Amino acid sequence: MSFDVSEHPHKRFNILMNSWVLVSPHRAKRPWLGQTENHDDDSKNKLKYDPKCYLCPGNKRVTGDVNADYKEPYIFDNDFPAVLSEQPSNTPSDLFELVSEQSKNSLDLFKIKSVRGRCQVICYSPDHSLTFADLSRKEIFSVIKSWLTVYINLSPPLNSRPENNNINYIQIFENKGSEMGCSNPHPHGQVWALESVSQKLSTEINSMKEYAKEKSPHSCMLCDYVLAETETKTRSLNSSENSSANRIVLENDTFVALVPFWAVWPFETMVLPKSHISSLFDLIKSSPGIDINSNHQDLIKNVCSWFDSLDPASVSANQSLGLKQVGDLADILSGICKIYDKLFNCSFPYSMGIHQSPVLHHKDAEFCHLHFHFYPPLLRSATVKKFLVGYEMMGEEQRDLTPEQAAQRLRDLI
Amino acid sequence: MSFDVSEHPHKRFNILMNSWVLVSPHRAKRPWLGQTENHDDDSKNKLKYDPKCYLCPGNKRVTGDVNADYKEPYIFDNDFPAVLSEQPSNTPSDLFELVSEQSKNSLDLFKIKSVRGRCQVICYSPDHSLTFADLSRKEIFSVIKSWLTVYINLSPPLNSRPENNNINYIQIFENKGSEMGCSNPHPHGQVWALESVSQKLSTEINSMKEYAKEKSPHSCMLCDYVLAETETKTRSLNSSENSSANRIVLENDTFVALVPFWAVWPFETMVLPKSHISSLFDLIKSSPGIDINSNHQDLIKNVCSWFDSLDPASVSANQSLGLKQVGDLADILSGICKIYDKLFNCSFPYSMGIHQSPVLHHKDAEFCHLHFHFYPPLLRSATVKKFLVGYEMMGEEQRDLTPEQAAQRLRDLI
Ligand SMILES: O=P(O)(O)O[C@H]1O[C@H](CO)[C@@H](O)[C@H](O)[C@H]1O
Ligand SMILES: O=P(O)(O)O[C@H]1O[C@H](CO)[C@@H](O)[C@H](O)[C@H]1O
Repeated sequence: MSFDVSEHPHKRFNILMNSWVLVSPHRAKRPWLGQTENHDDDSKNKLKYDPKCYLCPGNKRVTGDVNADYKEPYIFDNDFPAVLSEQPSNTPSDLFELVSEQSKNSLDLFKIKSVRGRCQVICYSPDHSLTFADLSRKEIFSVIKSWLTVYINLSPPLNSRPENNNINYIQIFENKGSEMGCSNPHPHGQVWALESVSQKLSTEINSMKEYAKEKSPHSCMLCDYVLAETETKTRSLNSSENSSANRIVLENDTFVALVPFWAVWPFETMVLPKSHISSLFDLIKSSPGIDINSNHQDLIKNVCSWFDSLDPASVSANQSLGLKQVGDLADILSGICKIYDKLFNCSFPYSMGIHQSPVLHHKDAEFCHLHFHFYPPLLRSATVKKFLVGYEMMGEEQRDLTPEQAAQRLRDLI
Repeated sequence: MSFDVSEHPHKRFNILMNSWVLVSPHRAKRPWLGQTENHDDDSKNKLKYDPKCYLCPGNKRVTGDVNADYKEPYIFDNDFPAVLSEQPSNTPSDLFELVSEQSKNSLDLFKIKSVRGRCQVICYSPDHSLTFADLSRKEIFSVIKSWLTVYINLSPPLNSRPENNNINYIQIFENKGSEMGCSNPHPHGQVWALESVSQKLSTEINSMKEYAKEKSPHSCMLCDYVLAETETKTRSLNSSENSSANRIVLENDTFVALVPFWAVWPFETMVLPKSHISSLFDLIKSSPGIDINSNHQDLIKNVCSWFDSLDPASVSANQSLGLKQVGDLADILSGICKIYDKLFNCSFPYSMGIHQSPVLHHKDAEFCHLHFHFYPPLLRSATVKKFLVGYEMMGEEQRDLTPEQAAQRLRDLI
């Protein structure tokens, strides 16, 4: 008997998070008797404008602020931010005063630090009834423009010292669907911008740095990974036997969408550029009129004019690499969201997040390789999700079908 | 303006997991418009025996096996195990064959290893209608006995070499409530026993080792932590101003239940002994008739006779430390589960897990300090839970109320 990855339990290593995942392929066969979700299919019978929605144009929010009558993606400060711009930055000490002299060790046990920052909301579209999967190419360009605007705007000014900045890390993400704690179906994402880089992005950047150090002169782990995955795909297409090793779901000239070798969520995917691009800004940094050394205000103005002058239909004519990449990114994001919706024939819930250089001009920017994570919870149907509980909470992450099987199922829907 | 932990966002360090958690205290005030859970209160109108339940005594399971007509906790092999006892142990190679010569680096990118093991189920009681919180002291003693039996039984024989064992790590846990992916309300826990120690327990053990090395001659991080928390409690009770720093919920002579300084889930708790005990077995290792060097079969027999001779009512008479500790553990587990049920007046969902020496006679046993994690998802009511999504998935774990506030709310229910 030889080892069969699609039958025998095994562990796989997540090179970004530096941790192991347990894969139990045969377990997908067990019957499900547990909880099912109330899947309100938000996309059905939905109004284009909902007078009670605090994200629709012209509506009043809980703070009394009134949304602009926006036509394009709309950015505003979160009414219930997880972090605040202004607060004392000194380390609080009152928790320690209660620690006695006897337990001198305990200072190490109670580490705490103040964190400032800013939280924003980005409405993707004025139309309440849409999701990202419904957006046109032109509309997705506008969303990418809004991500870039926020990224530049919240980044610290050029040459500022990190310790003087309120913001040294910008996390753009979207929670979609009530299963993912999303409280409003209006198409929108969030931005949490913090004083210090998050635990998970730090871990990823450290892994990238370690790899670059080991494989000198200079190597990027995700560049090598994408290359290995595209080669695996090619060989798998040329070999009837091994077609099961292909983890790529979608591919175009400059981007791929794949189920990572170490995926945790049943239909988790990662979208990443084939070439080394450290942030969304890098996509267009060499485009005419864009100068990374200009001040933020000018930079945003120029980025916006660049986007506004695009003719989405003619992007495929490939005038410049930047244009080509932005077009490919829009297409692949749209593609993966459309496939997701087909999988269980529902508006597919997920959390999506953008990992890139923590801010513009970050000291570790060269090690970062832009990528999007999609973490969707559904396992078997629109109402049965994977629970990461019990063993997963105490031991390690665990999945039931293999990443290769998941990739195959997603490809079958194209 | 000075820093106020109960108002200002901050990060706290989890000394066991070696990672930061974001705390946003003021955010507990935001209104909730999102998903609510179908909380079927399993404890209400429930049958003591359900003919359709595959865990009730005498019933047939999906495999055709018939459950014993058990009166005490009942242990059997999981019908859908996540790992298997027998399978090829060689590293699978077929995923690598597809990697071309060009990308030599890529071997590091696709790490995979075979994992053998065994999964078991422990029914806590024959009575379908109960939960752990309903069990009597005597019944909890029997559950502890069953945990110990499984732990000894699955541990490798004394002096065996780890590489020859199918099992080098035993994880005992319980998923309670449909919100936690539990598919059957019959009171039960699970045991996943694997060839290699899990990611999370490894991280914890490494943290413990690092601490012991730094604070030589010999120091245990969790011993120091418990001491610091009990001292904080004492000082907080003596000082009217600082009463808010007390994180202990329940305490008796030998155990505490507390909301850890770095808790992630809103009402997360940890139950741990005050003295250095590396596993459940250590609780009773010095008791008459127990010899850790006897073979497993004898050891289990002797442990069972020890438990069976106990008179739960007279344990408080404190004949021996082992007896005292087992009694205190039973009481504090029962206590915390009862408080949980009172919090939102429902059968409180959680995942519970036991962290201890990975197996009996493990080489790292001395660094382990037995503890129970309770991870309950509810935030505001029986139907509104905390979602660890979006920012938490991309960045780091985040909580809304402070651990001190959570501890206070739990204490208020005593
Ligand atoms: O084994 P069960 O109870 O069917 O399944 C439950 O617990 C397992 C271990 O925590 C998880 O992997 C599953 O996602 C969960 O639904
Ligand atoms: O900010 P929202 O959409 O109200 O809240 C949602 O997203 C946040 C960021 O991922 C999470 O912390 C919350 O648990 C979730 O419900």
